[in-house]
Amino acid sequence: MKKYGFGVDIGGTTCKIGLFETAGQIVEKWEIPTDTREEGKNILADIAASLSEKMAERKIGKDEIEGIGVGIPGPVKPDGSVSVCVNLGWKNRNIPEELGKLMDGILVKAGNDANVAALGEMWQGGGKGCKSLVMVTLGTGVGGGIIIDEKIVAGAHGAGGEIGHITVNPHENISCNCKRKGCLEQYCSATGLARLARERLEQEHEESLLDQVENVTAKDVFDAYKKQDKTAGEIVEKFARILGQALSNIACVADPEIFVLGGGVSKAGEVLLKAVEQPFREKAFPSCADTRFALASLGNDAGMYGCVRLILE
Amino acid sequence: MKKYGFGVDIGGTTCKIGLFETAGQIVEKWEIPTDTREEGKNILADIAASLSEKMAERKIGKDEIEGIGVGIPGPVKPDGSVSVCVNLGWKNRNIPEELGKLMDGILVKAGNDANVAALGEMWQGGGKGCKSLVMVTLGTGVGGGIIIDEKIVAGAHGAGGEIGHITVNPHENISCNCKRKGCLEQYCSATGLARLARERLEQEHEESLLDQVENVTAKDVFDAYKKQDKTAGEIVEKFARILGQALSNIACVADPEIFVLGGGVSKAGEVLLKAVEQPFREKAFPSCADTRFALASLGNDAGMYGCVRLILE
Repeated sequence: MKKYGFGVDIGGTTCKIGLFETAGQIVEKWEIPTDTREEGKNILADIAASLSEKMAERKIGKDEIEGIGVGIPGPVKPDGSVSVCVNLGWKNRNIPEELGKLMDGILVKAGNDANVAALGEMWQGGGKGCKSLVMVTLGTGVGGGIIIDEKIVAGAHGAGGEIGHITVNPHENISCNCKRKGCLEQYCSATGLARLARERLEQEHEESLLDQVENVTAKDVFDAYKKQDKTAGEIVEKFARILGQALSNIACVADPEIFVLGGGVSKAGEVLLKAVEQPFREKAFPSCADTRFALASLGNDAGMYGCVRLILE
Repeated sequence: MKKYGFGVDIGGTTCKIGLFETAGQIVEKWEIPTDTREEGKNILADIAASLSEKMAERKIGKDEIEGIGVGIPGPVKPDGSVSVCVNLGWKNRNIPEELGKLMDGILVKAGNDANVAALGEMWQGGGKGCKSLVMVTLGTGVGGGIIIDEKIVAGAHGAGGEIGHITVNPHENISCNCKRKGCLEQYCSATGLARLARERLEQEHEESLLDQVENVTAKDVFDAYKKQDKTAGEIVEKFARILGQALSNIACVADPEIFVLGGGVSKAGEVLLKAVEQPFREKAFPSCADTRFALASLGNDAGMYGCVRLILE
């Protein structure tokens, strides 16, 4: 195993780049803007320039680099190619081949950003030491990444781990971003939790800390919950019941060693785990009832870590 | 690759044994009784005797056997060991080691019976040519097996593919065999479909072919459905909606190339596929909406086939 690896997590606005030791330590991280003009034709060249510059600056030779892992905000095929990536403007691109050429033949692998984040949390984060995990990212939406036997489950159609779009309520009237109705993400994302709060506060309720807040956010709900606010408790309980039940169903399919919860909502900390674990354990198939739960610990760096782990396979 | 392999699918009453060419053809199959007395202590010795006898009869030497795959009706750990197998009376057994010793060092691998059946259908059955599939066995219960990248997803607690115990109705009052309430198996097994029929027939309904049947079975429902019976149509529609929705949620997790439907209910044939595909496609996450469906084609031999495929990994 060579000493270094690069992790490149491409987002719609910036690319997060990390130089890592392949043993697992991050050496340095920085960002460059993502140039999405003209179907994103400059993105890979910009990344290559930045990597080459860093190698020159630190006097790291090509033969010291194990490879470059790339995270992409859209579906990625098993060979690392991309049919369409709306966020970057890409169509029919083969990232490993193209970036490999620009980097003088260094090994390049690519994966979907949510999936590599899950791999990162397995490698050096909340799921460290596990061989299988389900990562649940509770952010603007609900993202997911599934790792089985230390490998990403990308899915035959790139939809492996799209757990935010599990239908949890077939009776929902409001549409999800995916145009279907009743998706997990409509209740358990930061936005979804805020909506549950709004709906509860519109009904009759005891005096609540949330009454004084103008636009209630997921953070407001958990802050009030930590202060034993009764209405916030009811909101969190509903949120946790929906999420815990969905995870108990996922356990009947993928049966991971651990669920790792990340994203903005997970900043609530241990109380989130406690809230979700309870309905999970009540609803779970008996043999999976002890599945562990942990908070993600790498934050926005999870993708970079996972990119590097990708090249170590 | 050596020329032959054995597949041994151990059931609670009989062991199905097959001699296969490793290229995929079954040469001969037979059964021996499963002796579950005294914590099943004779089972492996009986199997070894039967295999040795067959090798002698056909003049097949040890060096012509690639290995022996064993299917077990209970949870199996990744190394092929078994903590508890209620159906066989086994406790803390290491099948590959024990049977390997009895067979003069021939390679032995073991897997859960539902999972090896899925592997068999991938190898030579309804999912032939696919690298990932979800097998759904609609029998007395609802069993499942998940294959990703040509490998069984056994699960960290042996519950990988336990899709019969996905909760599809949190409001159910009647208990499932697993003691929880609202499992898929309560509606979509042969028994579950018969129950849906009974419940519908107890309500007001048009004159139906099913009115003349004493104890309505899943087969009766599909037979009447094929004759355009309106009430049978309503029953099948409810069954198919519950199953199709559950499979659409599974697609958001494992995203297989194909769903393979087997078990007694699948004897209904193509009409079953058509009925289930429709609600699946309506409910599925857009990128998986085209996931293929097929009928299982190996029947009770699927397990033996999968056992042999297990040793070819």
